[in-house]
Amino acid sequence: MECPDRRDAVICGIDPGLRIMGYAVMRVAGRDTSLVDAGVCRFDESLPLARRLVDIERDLVSILVEHKPCVVAVESLYAHYKHPRTAILMGHARGVILQAAAKLGIDVRDFAATRVKRHLTGNGRADKGQVQRAIQTSLNLPELPEPPDVADAIAIAMCCAAEMNQMTPAGVRG
Amino acid sequence: MECPDRRDAVICGIDPGLRIMGYAVMRVAGRDTSLVDAGVCRFDESLPLARRLVDIERDLVSILVEHKPCVVAVESLYAHYKHPRTAILMGHARGVILQAAAKLGIDVRDFAATRVKRHLTGNGRADKGQVQRAIQTSLNLPELPEPPDVADAIAIAMCCAAEMNQMTPAGVRG
Repeated sequence: MECPDRRDAVICGIDPGLRIMGYAVMRVAGRDTSLVDAGVCRFDESLPLARRLVDIERDLVSILVEHKPCVVAVESLYAHYKHPRTAILMGHARGVILQAAAKLGIDVRDFAATRVKRHLTGNGRADKGQVQRAIQTSLNLPELPEPPDVADAIAIAMCCAAEMNQMTPAGVRG
Repeated sequence: MECPDRRDAVICGIDPGLRIMGYAVMRVAGRDTSLVDAGVCRFDESLPLARRLVDIERDLVSILVEHKPCVVAVESLYAHYKHPRTAILMGHARGVILQAAAKLGIDVRDFAATRVKRHLTGNGRADKGQVQRAIQTSLNLPELPEPPDVADAIAIAMCCAAEMNQMTPAGVRG
């Protein structure tokens, strides 16, 4: 599903994880973006991997069915990990997330981490604290977004929202 | 779901992949194992990753619903890949497979590649040809199992079947 109207679209940013999954739901209305919902889903580390993946899909589908986004935005694959085993395990969670979104007919887009950071702070190598402060300022939040998983999900959603605005022809903006 | 009766159980071995997924369905009756069905599912490489993952789940669920195995057996995670990006992408397919099996209440077990090869050939470092010939001999197949994806799926299912037999108390064997 493409967003039927880019001037009024709902976007869901997801930060995949087998222990914690961050999510952020944003509404884009012209140049205005507002945070509708954000948080984390936590998964029971004592469960076998396959069972946790079932819980990840269940929680994600619940968020997607509630908010009906037209795009799910995730971070791009990054192949240069210090811990290959962790990266492959993360791929399991990411796979379930992409599959669950696509099965609901939701467009899936991915954004490189450096691009997300550059969008928010002007610096593709910004640290987590700089990203959190940029989100707080931009969305006028009373506190820093915590934990980092939810900050990452908001950051991805904001980057996706900005790109959708750029793709909107200038004549129909805000 | 645990196998209700280890003397008469159906096992499904899966060799995950984003381009080709191998599968093998085996019936274990006492010490006898027989190949019920085996083959590969092919996925359209021109489709985006998320769409291919949907197709992987669809095809796997179709196999599982048809044959109703009590165990899905896959190869263990192996973190020392030459191509980390490929390994992470493979993790996406594996994640969807584990999740789909667990959602159907099917027990998921994983087996190290060396253990599978050792079971079949006596050598944990056997090459693909040796594994294929061992499968052909053991199951009395008219030809070598091809392509390698289906041979790998059969090998995993055979290793799982042998382990289930070992777990059966001696008194109730075939």
